[in-house]
Amino acid sequence: MTGPSGDTANRSAPNSDSQDLEDIALGENYELTATYVDMVVDAADRGDSARLCDLVHALRPEDVADLMGFLSADYREDIIPHLAPEDLAEILAELDTNLREEVLDVLAPATLARAIGELDSDDAADVIDDMEDDQRHQVLAAMSDVDRAAIETTLAYEEETAGRLMQREVLAAPQFWTVGQTIDHVRGSGDELPELFFDVYVVDPAFKAVGAVPVSGLLRAPRERMLSEIMEQVTEIPVDMDQEEVAYIFDKYHLISAPVVDAGGRLVGQITVDDIVGVIQEETEEDILALAGVSDAGRDASVVDIVKSRLPWLVLNLATETVAVSVIGAFQQEIQKLVTLAIIMPIVASLGGNAGTQTLAVAVRALAGRELNAANALRTVRRELFVGLFNGAVLAAVMAGAIFLLFHDARLSLTVALALIVNISVAALAGILAPLALERFGRDPAVSSSVFVTFVTDFTGFLSFLGLAAWILL
Amino acid sequence: MTGPSGDTANRSAPNSDSQDLEDIALGENYELTATYVDMVVDAADRGDSARLCDLVHALRPEDVADLMGFLSADYREDIIPHLAPEDLAEILAELDTNLREEVLDVLAPATLARAIGELDSDDAADVIDDMEDDQRHQVLAAMSDVDRAAIETTLAYEEETAGRLMQREVLAAPQFWTVGQTIDHVRGSGDELPELFFDVYVVDPAFKAVGAVPVSGLLRAPRERMLSEIMEQVTEIPVDMDQEEVAYIFDKYHLISAPVVDAGGRLVGQITVDDIVGVIQEETEEDILALAGVSDAGRDASVVDIVKSRLPWLVLNLATETVAVSVIGAFQQEIQKLVTLAIIMPIVASLGGNAGTQTLAVAVRALAGRELNAANALRTVRRELFVGLFNGAVLAAVMAGAIFLLFHDARLSLTVALALIVNISVAALAGILAPLALERFGRDPAVSSSVFVTFVTDFTGFLSFLGLAAWILL
Repeated sequence: MTGPSGDTANRSAPNSDSQDLEDIALGENYELTATYVDMVVDAADRGDSARLCDLVHALRPEDVADLMGFLSADYREDIIPHLAPEDLAEILAELDTNLREEVLDVLAPATLARAIGELDSDDAADVIDDMEDDQRHQVLAAMSDVDRAAIETTLAYEEETAGRLMQREVLAAPQFWTVGQTIDHVRGSGDELPELFFDVYVVDPAFKAVGAVPVSGLLRAPRERMLSEIMEQVTEIPVDMDQEEVAYIFDKYHLISAPVVDAGGRLVGQITVDDIVGVIQEETEEDILALAGVSDAGRDASVVDIVKSRLPWLVLNLATETVAVSVIGAFQQEIQKLVTLAIIMPIVASLGGNAGTQTLAVAVRALAGRELNAANALRTVRRELFVGLFNGAVLAAVMAGAIFLLFHDARLSLTVALALIVNISVAALAGILAPLALERFGRDPAVSSSVFVTFVTDFTGFLSFLGLAAWILL
Repeated sequence: MTGPSGDTANRSAPNSDSQDLEDIALGENYELTATYVDMVVDAADRGDSARLCDLVHALRPEDVADLMGFLSADYREDIIPHLAPEDLAEILAELDTNLREEVLDVLAPATLARAIGELDSDDAADVIDDMEDDQRHQVLAAMSDVDRAAIETTLAYEEETAGRLMQREVLAAPQFWTVGQTIDHVRGSGDELPELFFDVYVVDPAFKAVGAVPVSGLLRAPRERMLSEIMEQVTEIPVDMDQEEVAYIFDKYHLISAPVVDAGGRLVGQITVDDIVGVIQEETEEDILALAGVSDAGRDASVVDIVKSRLPWLVLNLATETVAVSVIGAFQQEIQKLVTLAIIMPIVASLGGNAGTQTLAVAVRALAGRELNAANALRTVRRELFVGLFNGAVLAAVMAGAIFLLFHDARLSLTVALALIVNISVAALAGILAPLALERFGRDPAVSSSVFVTFVTDFTGFLSFLGLAAWILL
């Protein structure tokens, strides 16, 4: 990847045609290059509209969305008028929520209605959902009745459920149709079919999906073969299922698409794997951020938004940490007698915190992958406790040795060793029990676990070390 | 989900047929139930082979693999003889590496060769790769020449590259073919085609992929239409590309399948999105675990394996923490004069650690999503610094107020406030600069960042607070 300093050669070639631009735009790995972002900024600074237009039009919609993410707000505004109308729908679908709102704010309802009409119902609903009430009404009013009805139906499902993920366009065929009939039907239908589809759902008279035929299977089979003879088992997704569950099922059974059914088992839409890739990214992202005690502020969020996403957690941490250090307050006399205690106590607390975080991260991932449940919970807790005891014993031996070498005080060594074993075992238990308990009570095991684990390990670290010191040493 | 205690009714119904078993096996969300695992354990304990066989055969291969993960090693051994031969291939493909090795150990080379021959070349190579040299030779020798050659070619590519992910089976057609010709070709071909395919790759005489036609597009188009007229742009994947890059490209462009090309641009295979879902899971999992300072020990790993995956990080942490607390050692006299310092200093260090972790987690995710590069690095660092200053100021105000209320010492309040602002700003910088630097030098930004950030915030926390205290208070 060429950094901003290495792009002089490229930028000084103003006659480069569209193919050249494409070559500069994307690095070897298809990521948008910093060079290209600089070229855009440069053209905007010079007020060179024609150049800006060329630069934007040389990109695929996904890369335009990416470009917007790299630009600061001022430059984004310069770009918006140059978005190609035919790409607008896809660009909108790709943009992060906060960036999308900026774009929506400046476009006319008619333009938006046209663009959104081109999207599959799930993407269209997503974009509409980000609008202010006012704009939403105007845009919906400017759409065709069919498109509007589809979007309104989708929006009636709760966020982050299968109903929101699915597209209503599906290819369904009755059991008694032959392969040939089905292919002819596809050739005859036009816009009602989804843009891309991977399975033909075979339905009974009640419109229940009784099987599926992959499109490649349809091509392979003789024209006279009946669908019911070649269909495969389907994995039905209830329309109100949480998207995280949907992603789990797709991942587990390696699905490419799956039929979505309503409470009566009737086929109402389909979910395709490309939507699931986004969900998986989103859900694991949430876990990572939750474990770090931060919420997602979105791409190119403002300082205020970022502060909002982080400060509450820090304040919570300040509160728990205040409780934890109150333990130290109870041992002021001991510390005054032996200041070395104040030097060593953070090590005991910190190692406990780290050990707890390790267990916690593994447990949260195992829960997310449904690899941990009542069947192996007890075994897992026992194993974590053994790991904690073992790690604690090793670290205790190392530290006790080091402290004896430094301070020549066997009792101090013993105190540290015992405190470490206690704290790292407690850390292991906290790291596994906290997420298990949250999951049990239907809460997200990643959220607030780490604050709790850190509190427990700090509290136990200070208490076990100073308490043992008071007892053994003084 | 019914816990192990609530399943008496189910377990006492030994006449339940296969459909009933399926209903008990999976919860509403298609996850294997604890009840079912208990039923398996129960049958194994009673030595009831017939029942065990029924229980295993009622499951889909993916769920059998899941079951193995929930069982302890002894019970896994009881299951292996009952694995259905026709499912064996898929079960092997699904199992985690350490569980797979257990199964491979007990199966005969001929059985394995037959099972592996049914898999696509990427899955087959994966399984073969987990075998001991001895067994690998025997199994390969028992396979057909064609299968063996395919697997050996795949294994020749480096691990975690496109070459390993791809399947060599592709559907390619020359530009001048019509839709009808292509469909007839598919009907005429048999086993050479991949089991499932989503795109027909259009190739030139040099076997370079010049376009792709989605299978649904092939169905929709009239039979006499030429492929070159309806083909779409392809996104080529170089065979030596890292799998993380491949996943990024699939996610960005919402690809369902993509052609893999060798150094000469020649089509050598294809990657499908279902393989990518696994890669994305793997890569984000690696990030979460790396940030928590732990390596993946695999499903149902032994205590020894888990200790190996965690102890090195804890020892590293012990080392850095020892350096950090050495700062405290330099201020022993100050602490002896005012023990309150020992109570407050962990708060300053801990809040810094949390703030740093927040920034780090966000930065690591932005780097993984290619949302952070030279184009916006400077802006991002500046923004993080502002966020740090702001959060630091708020927390400083809160803590200074609380301390004044408790200790009635304005200078102590001032000391804490200044130290907090310094440490949280430093934390923000460390949290963003550490991953950026690692990325710059081609290292994984998630690995060892958090150890570094914690070290910096502990060190700075103790130094700024105790240093300022010595200057302002004493």
